[in-house]
Formats: sequence, C-alpha cells, structure tokens
Amino acid sequence: MTNYSAPVKDLQFVLNELVEMDKVASLPGFEEASPDMISAILEEAAKMANEVLAPLNWVGDQEHSRLVDGKVVTPKGFADAYQQFAESGWTSISQPTEYGGQGLPFALQVACSEMWNASNMSFGLCPMLTASAIESMYAHAGEEMNQTYLTKLISGEWTGTMCLTEPQAGSDLAAVRSTAEPAGDHYLIKGTKIYITWGDHDMTTNTIHLVLARLPDAPEGVKGISLFVVPKFLVNDDGSLGDRNDIKPVSLEHKLGIHASPTCVLSLGDDDGAVGYLVGEPHRGLSYMFTMMNHARLEVGVQGIGVAERAHQKAVEYARERVQGFAPGQQGRVTIVHHADVRRMLMTMRALVEAGRAVALVGSAAHDFAHHEQDKDASTRARQRLDFMTPVVKAWCTELAQEVTGIGVQVHGGMGFVEETGAAQFYRDARITTIYEGTTGIQANDLIGRKLLRDNGAAWETLRNELSDFLKQMQAEAGEDFPIISERFGEALQEQIIATDFVLENAANDPHLPGAVSYNYLMLTGYVFGGWLLAKSALISAAHLKKDGADTTFYKNKIATARFYAEQILPRTHAHRTGVVAGTGTIMGIAAEDL
Amino acid sequence: MTNYSAPVKDLQFVLNELVEMDKVASLPGFEEASPDMISAILEEAAKMANEVLAPLNWVGDQEHSRLVDGKVVTPKGFADAYQQFAESGWTSISQPTEYGGQGLPFALQVACSEMWNASNMSFGLCPMLTASAIESMYAHAGEEMNQTYLTKLISGEWTGTMCLTEPQAGSDLAAVRSTAEPAGDHYLIKGTKIYITWGDHDMTTNTIHLVLARLPDAPEGVKGISLFVVPKFLVNDDGSLGDRNDIKPVSLEHKLGIHASPTCVLSLGDDDGAVGYLVGEPHRGLSYMFTMMNHARLEVGVQGIGVAERAHQKAVEYARERVQGFAPGQQGRVTIVHHADVRRMLMTMRALVEAGRAVALVGSAAHDFAHHEQDKDASTRARQRLDFMTPVVKAWCTELAQEVTGIGVQVHGGMGFVEETGAAQFYRDARITTIYEGTTGIQANDLIGRKLLRDNGAAWETLRNELSDFLKQMQAEAGEDFPIISERFGEALQEQIIATDFVLENAANDPHLPGAVSYNYLMLTGYVFGGWLLAKSALISAAHLKKDGADTTFYKNKIATARFYAEQILPRTHAHRTGVVAGTGTIMGIAAEDL
Repeated sequence: MTNYSAPVKDLQFVLNELVEMDKVASLPGFEEASPDMISAILEEAAKMANEVLAPLNWVGDQEHSRLVDGKVVTPKGFADAYQQFAESGWTSISQPTEYGGQGLPFALQVACSEMWNASNMSFGLCPMLTASAIESMYAHAGEEMNQTYLTKLISGEWTGTMCLTEPQAGSDLAAVRSTAEPAGDHYLIKGTKIYITWGDHDMTTNTIHLVLARLPDAPEGVKGISLFVVPKFLVNDDGSLGDRNDIKPVSLEHKLGIHASPTCVLSLGDDDGAVGYLVGEPHRGLSYMFTMMNHARLEVGVQGIGVAERAHQKAVEYARERVQGFAPGQQGRVTIVHHADVRRMLMTMRALVEAGRAVALVGSAAHDFAHHEQDKDASTRARQRLDFMTPVVKAWCTELAQEVTGIGVQVHGGMGFVEETGAAQFYRDARITTIYEGTTGIQANDLIGRKLLRDNGAAWETLRNELSDFLKQMQAEAGEDFPIISERFGEALQEQIIATDFVLENAANDPHLPGAVSYNYLMLTGYVFGGWLLAKSALISAAHLKKDGADTTFYKNKIATARFYAEQILPRTHAHRTGVVAGTGTIMGIAAEDL
Repeated sequence: MTNYSAPVKDLQFVLNELVEMDKVASLPGFEEASPDMISAILEEAAKMANEVLAPLNWVGDQEHSRLVDGKVVTPKGFADAYQQFAESGWTSISQPTEYGGQGLPFALQVACSEMWNASNMSFGLCPMLTASAIESMYAHAGEEMNQTYLTKLISGEWTGTMCLTEPQAGSDLAAVRSTAEPAGDHYLIKGTKIYITWGDHDMTTNTIHLVLARLPDAPEGVKGISLFVVPKFLVNDDGSLGDRNDIKPVSLEHKLGIHASPTCVLSLGDDDGAVGYLVGEPHRGLSYMFTMMNHARLEVGVQGIGVAERAHQKAVEYARERVQGFAPGQQGRVTIVHHADVRRMLMTMRALVEAGRAVALVGSAAHDFAHHEQDKDASTRARQRLDFMTPVVKAWCTELAQEVTGIGVQVHGGMGFVEETGAAQFYRDARITTIYEGTTGIQANDLIGRKLLRDNGAAWETLRNELSDFLKQMQAEAGEDFPIISERFGEALQEQIIATDFVLENAANDPHLPGAVSYNYLMLTGYVFGGWLLAKSALISAAHLKKDGADTTFYKNKIATARFYAEQILPRTHAHRTGVVAGTGTIMGIAAEDL
C-alpha cells in the first residue's frame, strides 16, 4: 500500500560521522563494527524493512491481531515475516555473544530499530519488548536461567514480554498488587496485568513473560516488588516444551493504532497460579526494571523517528504527484510540491526527523561508550551523557513524531483523512509513543529530578561545556549559512542556560517547580540538542564539500536542512524558556475543583 | 459514554462582555437579542447538546453511517435526534425571518454551534452544511426558488449539501469538470462529486444539493463555473415530493474520524442527468461560493473549539479520578490532578479553548456588525475586521484543536490510547477541521494575500491601532497579574508588527514569500488575538471583582487563565515571527526532486 525506502544514507552519515562509530569500534568487544560491516548491516536491514515488513503494515492495521478461543491470532503474513526476521539474525544484533548474540554496538541496533518501526511499528514492538526482557535477564538472572531462556530469546526462537502494569499501577509501579507464593523451586503467581504488548501470539512456540509481583513478606511500596520469569509453556530439563502455564490472555485492547500489535490483558493464576522463577534477589524487581529502561526508552524514541520518517516519505511522494493550483514561475497547474507552504511542511518534517535521528543515535552511542569504555572517567562521562540524554530521546523524539505525522496527514488534504491513503495510520500509530515506556511527563520529571537536580547540574555542566565549545567552533565558520546557524544556535543555547540556572536556583524553594517546568525544560533541551547535532552535520558536510566534492547534493541539503532548523525550529526554545522561568505560577493557579 | 456539560457560563461571558451583545442588539433587526433572550437560548441549547446529542457521540463513532442498498443509513438515534433538533428551531436561529428564520445574531448561532459540535461533531456537520446552502441560496437564488427550497431548509424539514469537490478539484475549484446541459427550464448535470458531507441520509425526506458545474459555453478556469440546486427528490408545484433525481451516493469514505457523518461520493447523471436549477447568473458559481465561505469558515473554527472543549472536560474528569503517585504537600497517593505537569496540560487546554472561543465569537460578531451596521464607515470597519479575522478563526482555532485533543489523549496515559475511553475519538474527529472548508495553508494564503497585501495593510492598521490602544489601557492597570500580562502581550504585539512590516515590505520582490511565511504569520496573528481577548477578559473580570464581588471564583480564574496564556502561550509568537522574517530562504532551499 505505502512504500518505504529505508534512509540508509542518512543512517550511515549519522553513525559514521556524527556518532563516530570508529571510536565505538575501537572499544573492546566492538572490533568487528567496521564501517564496511556497518554499511552491510544497514543495507541488509533496509531490505528486510522495505521488502518484508513494510508491505504488512497496512494489512496489519486493517486485520488487527485478534483473540480467538483464548489465543491471539496475528494478521496474515506476520508469522512468516517473523520467522524470516529471526532467521536473518535481526533479534540478536547487539546481544551478548555468550548467549549467541552478535555483540555489535547498541547504536547500530537502534539504527536498525528505526527501520523496523518505520516499516511496521506493530511488528517492531515484538523484538523491542523481547530485547527489554533480554536486558533484564542478562543483568539479573543467573547462568542456569539464562541458558534455558536467554539463548532462545536472543536467537528469536521465543519472544519476551514485560508484565509491569496493573489497573491501579501504571506510571506508579510501586502500586503493583500481583502476588507470588513460594512453592518449592518456583513461585505461584496470581494477578492481572494490563497493556502487555505482544502478550500472546502465534509467531513463535513460546513466550517468556517477565512479571512484577509481591512476595508474601514484601514491604509496602517500591522496595517490595520482585521480578519473575513466567514462561507461557513450561520448559522441561531437556529444553523441550512442557505444560501450558497458568497465564492467559483474557482480552485485547481496542486501540487507536498499532492494531497488529496485540495489547493483552493477562490473567495469572486463574487455576493454581502461574509458575514463575525469581530473577535475582527478592524485592529488587523495580530497580531491575529501571536498569533496563534506558535501553527501552532510547528504542521508543527512535520508534517515534521511524514512524515520522515514514510519514515524511509518504507526504513527499504525494506532494510530487498531486496536481492542484498554480505557483509562481511555473507554467499551468502544478504538483503541490511547488507551493511554498507545502514545502514548508515537508521541510519541517525533514528537519525534525533528521534532528531526532541524530539525537537518538548519539544518545544510543552513549550507551555503548558507557558500557564499554575502559577508562573510568571516560565511562563516567558517557554514563552521564546517556542518563541526561535518555529521557530527552524518549520524550522529545516522540513528541516530534506527533507533529510530523500530523503534518503528514495535512499535506494530503482530504485524502489524509481517508484511511486507505495510509497517512492516518502513521498518525494513529505514533500517538502511543509519548505514552508507553513512561509518558512525556514521566521523562521530563526524570530529566529534571534525577538527571539535573540530583547531581546539582554536574552532568549538564559537562554537556554545556561541549555545546559552548561547539558554538565557538561554529562561529569561526564563514559562508552564507553558518553565521545564521551560529546565531540561532547561540540564542537557543543561551535560553537553555537561563532555564537551567533558574531551575537549579529555585527548585529547592518550591516543591511544585520541577513538575511544573519539566515539560518545557525537556522540550527546550531536545531542540537545543537537535540544533547542535544538525549544525555539526552541516559543518561535517561543509568539510566534505571543500575536500572531495563527492555527493554534492547530499551534503548541500544537509546544510540547507540545518539552516532551516536553525531559522524555523530553534526559535521555539524561546517560548519553552519563558515557560520555565514563569515557574509554578498560574500552572497551579486554579484550584483542582474549579478546573 | 462521555458526559458533556456545555460551558454556558463562559459562552455568556464572551457574548455579553467581550462581544458586547448589547451593541449587536442595538442594530436594526436584532432588537430581540436581549441578554435574557441570549441566556435563555444558550440554556436551551445546552440541554439539547448535553442530553440529546452528546449521548449519541460514541454510538455514532462505533456504528458509523453505512451505505445499504444505495441509501445511507445513519446510526441508531440520529434520525430521532435530528427531528427533535429541527422541531426545537435550532436550524433557524440566525436565518432570515422572511423564510421562517428567527433572525437572531450570527454570533449567537455560532455559540450554539460550538455546543452542537462539542456534543456530537458528526451530527453538527449536518446543520452546518445546510446553513452554508441556505446562505448561498438566500444571497443568490430568486424568490420562487427560495420559497420552494429555502423555507424547508430553514425549518429543518430538509437538509442541504455543498457539492464542490471533484477528484481533480479540491482546493483548486477552478478545475471542476462536471457539466450542465440546458434542458428547458432546467439543466441536466453529469459528473462525480467527492467528500460530500451528509450527501445522503435517512434523517429527512429530502436533501437539497448545491452543485458546481460547467455550462457548455463556459470559459476555462474560475469564471466558467455555475451553481445549481439539485434536489434528491424533485419537488412538485404543490410542494409535494416527486421523482427521485439522478444523483446518488455510490460510496462512503472510510475515515479517521467523524464516522457518523456520511462523506459521500455522489454520482450525477448515471442515467439521463440530474435535474438542476441554475442559481443566480451563469458562470458566477465560484464567486457565490466565496461569499458563503466566511460563514462556513467561522463555523468550522468554532467546531475546533467545541471538540477541544469536550476533550478538556474529559481530561479534567479523568485527572480528578485517576489515582497515581504522590505529590508535594499531599498525604498518600493522589489523583493525578495534583501533579504539576498534569495541571500544566489541563491549563494549556483551558487557556487555548477560552482564547479560541473568544476569537471565534468576536469574529462572528463582526459578521453581524458588517451586515447590520447602518453607518457606512462602521459597516466597512466591521467588514474589514470580519475579513481579516475569518481565516484566523478557521485555521488557528482548528490548529489549537489538534493540540488540545492531543493533550487530552496524553492526560489519560495508556487509557487515552484505548478507544473505549473516548479521548481518542475527539483526537480523530478534530483532525479533519484543519483540512475541510479550506486547509490551514489556504486560510493562511487568504490572510496574507487577500486580507493583508491586497489593501496594503489597511485593515491590519485599524486592528493594530485597536490593539495598541488596548495595550496602553492594560499597562495602566495595577496588581500582581496585569503588569506581566501587559508585558507579554506587548512583546507579542511587537512580534506581530515586525512580521507584518516585513511582509508588506518584501512581498513584492519575492513571489514565493507570501506562501512561505503565511502559516507562521497566521499562527502569530491568532496567538496575538487570543492574548488580546483573554487580557480583555481579565480586565473585565477585575472590574467585576472590584465592583460587585459576585462569583469571585469565575472572575479570578479568568484572570489566572489570562496570565497563564500570557506566560505560557504568548511567547510562541517569537518563533512564528522569526519564521516569518527568515523569508522564503531554506523553505524552497532543497529542490523538489531531492526532498
């Protein structure tokens, strides 16, 4: 229905030149991540995305996953596509080699993830959630458990889920009520979990659920929650599948988007209790979840960029075909791409997507540096960057996805509102990305509370110095575009500095302040990061144009996009800064009962 | 499913105090529009909306209108609701008395329209489109034709449609290809019309279509299109219904939203040709359409505000019920309304809705002044205001609706993405409002091309003086809030002045400039108008608080909302101004083939 052509060239540019994959490849364990290897993998992933996953996107939206006789039936073609996906090794790119993974950089995994989600967001969620389960188990489960489960999750033979949410426990996971009773070498778990993505399906023979529940002696609150492995089918000692476990899908949500992704209500323990195995130590489940969340949040950020890229491609295609009206300097009726306001929309989509992609992949590379740098200081700096950038990647990129997919509908005019066109699907699918894996508000709270205030601005200070140094470098660059890009970026950075100082100075005196200003602070930060990385892309492009003159159009357009972003997008930072320095003020100015 | 409680109090405030209905009521023909009459009508309309239309909103979304055996079947309850609606006189509020209308002000009609669309947008479209047909016919059809058709459209016995769009002729109506052959006292029309809202249905016995088509001798382009009345059933001389006319629904669009509103593809002339009667003179159909469009555009603007208001009510209700997490100064787990970031979202929704409502109703009152002022200068000034404000009301208010309904989903977290919650319906329904009756781009083009540049800024100059005078008045006001409101409003007005001067100075030298900057210019203008009218509301409220002390909470909250808007929303004007003064620049900087 809608074609997708994975943006391999831009992904290569961002990975090789912005992320500096050569530095990543010089880290112990990443020796194989040569530019050639990266390119080969991106090309192969593009084929998978373009040819196998993209054609199933619309089918999946129309057909939905359905619950039939207590089992989830996925749309036609999904199971075959999954087999192909797993057999090609796409489930294991950045997974640990000791359990059969390829051990490649996480940034490369995220680049591929953009393609899975752009081509078929519903499908992409299945390996994404599995990867979350893998990360939790790898970090916290023992060797025996991992030999049994992890190898098959990594190979893609089985998939995984994260069973966190309950009706009363969404963002507030401390409110979890599911119970786990000891029963010999295992536990019997009872409870109801909701919003379980790919909580049941017919694409693999088994599904491994990671479930949060309380032991009988658990203390109240965050410190009383444990993590359990609950397989759909129990696994015999020889690795073969045994009995069906007492965990079952009882209904599927009827959702705005991602219709092919079954969002299950799972009931545990309708009979005797679901057999579960404790991961790590008792009562530490929530902290195990939080270790895992960086990874998942970066992935959801790039998911937003994926669906936004797809919406952009679709809008460009339509704008080049649809004839309507007249335009200056053109004979007769024109395709709408010649109308300046349509061009503004397409450039806005392009600039936001390229900025978001750059921020998401630089953030993801920080994950690699943080985990693989041998030098302790370098590793600490990378960890700080990772921690600071993660909520921004998650929330800012997904907020951009709302704007970009909305413009995508708009470019199509009346056709955009007709479902068969396909633009509306991207708009509907994208809507969840600012909600799951922690809402924008939760991310903003994390950024301001844990990442900015907790170390009293130390991590920010390191980033600020890097951005200020970069600004000086930009200011030294001559030409028609760079003075303007520098000026706008300098202004935006100044807005960020003012806002940060305001928060650091005033948070202690006003308990509502962090919450009240957090959204504006996060969005401001995202736009500044985007401006930084697009300006850096423009500098790199200018160097290429001077040096080798190769692929002139690509590099020239990188500079044009960076300037567009500087002129048309970066000034948004002003309103976000003003919002921050207004403080709590009228945000809490009307009583809850009078709203 | 979702309750709706029409915001009668705010509508009264806006009509009585901001719009100054007493001045409207002093115009010839509007003598009956006393404050008591206004209040009584708003109260009755609220009952209709709350009790009859709102309960059908979700039903309509789920059931859809369907095409069965060549006829449109509406969702259960719609036909009865329509009968009640028509019998209560809601189709005739502002319609001409000589054909049975009530002759009340258009601003009052628009206030009611907000309620119809908030309670049930799909339903609201039917009388809205009928009113467009009425306006065209009243202005351009002869007495005989109007006695036959107009009386029954105004009484609500029949409904009307606007058949403009064809596959190749959307925004570009000059491309219309339907043909009309003379055949005695009538014409035989052939062609295909698409996107015909309520193009067929079972709620009334007849539907009167207004159809654009070309006569055989018609010149090419905009000046060769004529307007015809094409009844679904021909009308005999005695007023009884005759033969079924050759105009038929052949399919319904499968849309993102407004599922209960049948969007028809109509085929005319599959047999001998649809019998049509020429309205007014030949070849003038397109200009007849444009006379009508002010009215329809104001109505769609307020439709955006209606659905945004509904989304706001829903979000407030949920935020007051949903328990999650802890908040400063509160014991134990709290409802999420106590979280500052949730409050920011709710206040943003509130401020945008109140600002949009004020702008839409002041714009609508300009329609009354323009048509009823006896003093020629006063009438001209009102006409200028109407012309300048109309594209802003249409586009800005509907763009706000995207933001507000999107926040509405976000406040609900995961529940917002589940269709049964209802928040997603408002988000889906709202999406069409920036598209139909002229996209945001078309409105922006109209504002900058016809309303600003054509008279070289004269209409703007009048408004600018009014806004500057108002700023001085604000600056004289003491207190905690007014200095800040004045400062932010003064800055925003300055942005508007800079942007306007830039456009006036540079448009002649750059043919792409108007198109390139028009969106930013329109949004900037909308935010300034909103700031002006909310600040004015705050001034009026302060006067009430000083004077009578009555309903302290209502007036205090008006001031708090105005200050919130000044601090959190008005600074957006900076980015829009920067976008304007960047000119065409990088908007056209990448070649169409490289996008």
